[in-house]
Amino acid sequence: MKLKSECIPCLLGRVLYEANLVTNDESLRIKTLLGACKILIESYDSNLSSAEIATKVHKTAYKLLGTKDPYKKLKEESNRLALQLLPKIKSIVENSEERLKTSMLCAIIGNILDFGIKGSESDPSVLIEKFDRYFSEGLKYDDSGMVETLLRDAEDIVFVTDNCGEIVFDKILCQEIKRFNNRLKITLVVRGEPILTDATMEDAIQLGFDEVVDRILTTGTFAVGLDIKEIPAALKKALEDNDLIICKGMANYEALSETDYKPIAYLLRTKCTAIANDMNLPLNVNAIKLYD
Amino acid sequence: MKLKSECIPCLLGRVLYEANLVTNDESLRIKTLLGACKILIESYDSNLSSAEIATKVHKTAYKLLGTKDPYKKLKEESNRLALQLLPKIKSIVENSEERLKTSMLCAIIGNILDFGIKGSESDPSVLIEKFDRYFSEGLKYDDSGMVETLLRDAEDIVFVTDNCGEIVFDKILCQEIKRFNNRLKITLVVRGEPILTDATMEDAIQLGFDEVVDRILTTGTFAVGLDIKEIPAALKKALEDNDLIICKGMANYEALSETDYKPIAYLLRTKCTAIANDMNLPLNVNAIKLYD
Repeated sequence: MKLKSECIPCLLGRVLYEANLVTNDESLRIKTLLGACKILIESYDSNLSSAEIATKVHKTAYKLLGTKDPYKKLKEESNRLALQLLPKIKSIVENSEERLKTSMLCAIIGNILDFGIKGSESDPSVLIEKFDRYFSEGLKYDDSGMVETLLRDAEDIVFVTDNCGEIVFDKILCQEIKRFNNRLKITLVVRGEPILTDATMEDAIQLGFDEVVDRILTTGTFAVGLDIKEIPAALKKALEDNDLIICKGMANYEALSETDYKPIAYLLRTKCTAIANDMNLPLNVNAIKLYD
Repeated sequence: MKLKSECIPCLLGRVLYEANLVTNDESLRIKTLLGACKILIESYDSNLSSAEIATKVHKTAYKLLGTKDPYKKLKEESNRLALQLLPKIKSIVENSEERLKTSMLCAIIGNILDFGIKGSESDPSVLIEKFDRYFSEGLKYDDSGMVETLLRDAEDIVFVTDNCGEIVFDKILCQEIKRFNNRLKITLVVRGEPILTDATMEDAIQLGFDEVVDRILTTGTFAVGLDIKEIPAALKKALEDNDLIICKGMANYEALSETDYKPIAYLLRTKCTAIANDMNLPLNVNAIKLYD
C-alpha cells in the first residue's frame, strides 16, 4: 500500500505514543516529533509503500528517544494476557464444528492487541473483556473456504506473524492448520528486530513455536512488516516457493501488497480507513481476504 | 500556552481535515501535509505559543490548498443550526433563576457543538439531544461568581468570540450581561480573516451583534486566536483598558494565556488534554476560569 494522506497524522500520533512510553521530557518528545516530521519529508516518495516510510520514521524516533524497544513491557504484558485467554480459546476451537475457520477468527481477534493507533485498544486487559464481543461479530469478509482449499493440497506455507499477544493465538491456528493437513510444512516468520509491538524470534521461541512449525525465519531487519528490498535469502526463497502465504495484521499488508508474492491470505481486523479502503473492506471488521 | 508534543499530530490531523474539505486530489493532500510538517519544523520555537505556530501551519495549508476559507460551508451550516436551537436556549435562560450564569453555560455548550465536524451532528434533533446532555453536566469549574462581581461594577468589557454557531449563543450571553449591568459597554472581538470555523465580522453583522454590543473590532489578522504581536491599535487599547476580558474557546486561551492582559475569564469546554492540563482542569468539562 502507498502512503495515504491520513497516514501522516496517524504515524506522528504513533511516534507521540512511543515518546510518551519512553520519556517524560517534553522537549525530547517535541524534538522526536519534529525529527519524525523531518524524516517524513525527506523520505517521502510516492513509489514507496507506507510500510517503508513508516520504518524510516520509527527508526528515527527510536534513535532520537535513545531506545531499541519502547514497547518491551507492553509486549510482555500482551503475551501474558493472551496466555491467560489461551484455555478459553482452545476450548472454543476444540468445540467448534469448523475448527480451522474458528481458529482463524480467534487469531484475527488477537490482532486487536495493537497499541498507539486509532481504533486499537490502549490496554491489553481489554482483550479479555472484549474477546466475546469481537468473536460474536464473526468474519465480515470471509475467504476461509478458498484458503482451506489451498491448505488441503499444500505442501509448504509461510505464516507471517504480527503482534505479540496475537502470536499466542497464531500458535493455535498453526496447530489447527497442521491438524487439517498434517503433510504440509509451516515456515513461521517473525520480525528481525524489535519494532512496534511485533513478535520477534525471542517471542516465538518462548511461546514454543518450535514444537508446532517446521521452521522459524525472521524478516532480518528493523522494518514495519518487512523490508521488501532487504529480504534475507532464505525468506525470499520461502516467499517465492510455497503454496500459500498467510499474513497477519495490517503492517504485513502494507508491505506485501506491494509485491507479487501470491497467493496471500490476509487475516486481519481493519483498524484504519487507509487500509480498509485500500483492501475495499469496511472499517473495524474481522476479515480473511485472499489475493491470488 | 506553549506548543505541547501532543499538539503536533493533532495539528496535522486538522490540516488533513482541511485538505479533505477542499480537494479529492490525494497528491495535493499529501503535499499539503508535508508542507505543514515543513513549516512546523521551520517555525518551531519553544518561546512561541501553540496559537502562533498553529497560525503558521494553517496559513501554509490554506496556501498550498489554494483556499481562503475551507470551512466556509461548515460555518454557514453551524450558524444555521445554532439559530434553530436559539428559541430553546432563550427559553432556558429566561426561565432560569440564574440567568447570567445559565447564559454563560449555554455559550460554553455552543463551544462544543462542533457543527458539521461529524456528519451525524448536522441533524438538529441530535444537536438538541446533545445540548441537553452537556447542559445537565453543568459547570465542572465555576468562577462565575467572581466574574459576576467584576461585571457588576464594570464599565467596559471585551468579549473575544470563537466559532461560528457558538457565536449565536454568545449573543444571548451579551444580552444577559447588558441586562445584568446596563451601564457597561461591550467590545466584541471577531477574527480579522477567515480561519478555521471562527466567526468574522461578516458573521457578527449578519447575526445582528450591532444591536447588542457597543463596538465590534477584529483581530486584524489571519491568526488562531489572535496574533499577540500584531494586535491592531484599537484592539490593543481595548485589551489594555477594560474591567474584564471574556474569552470563548480554546484558541483564545492558547493565544492570550501568553499575555499579561488581566483579568481574563475563559469560558470553554476542555476538549483536549493539552489545554485541560495547562489550565489544570479535567478533560471534557464545561468551565469558567478567571485569571486575575
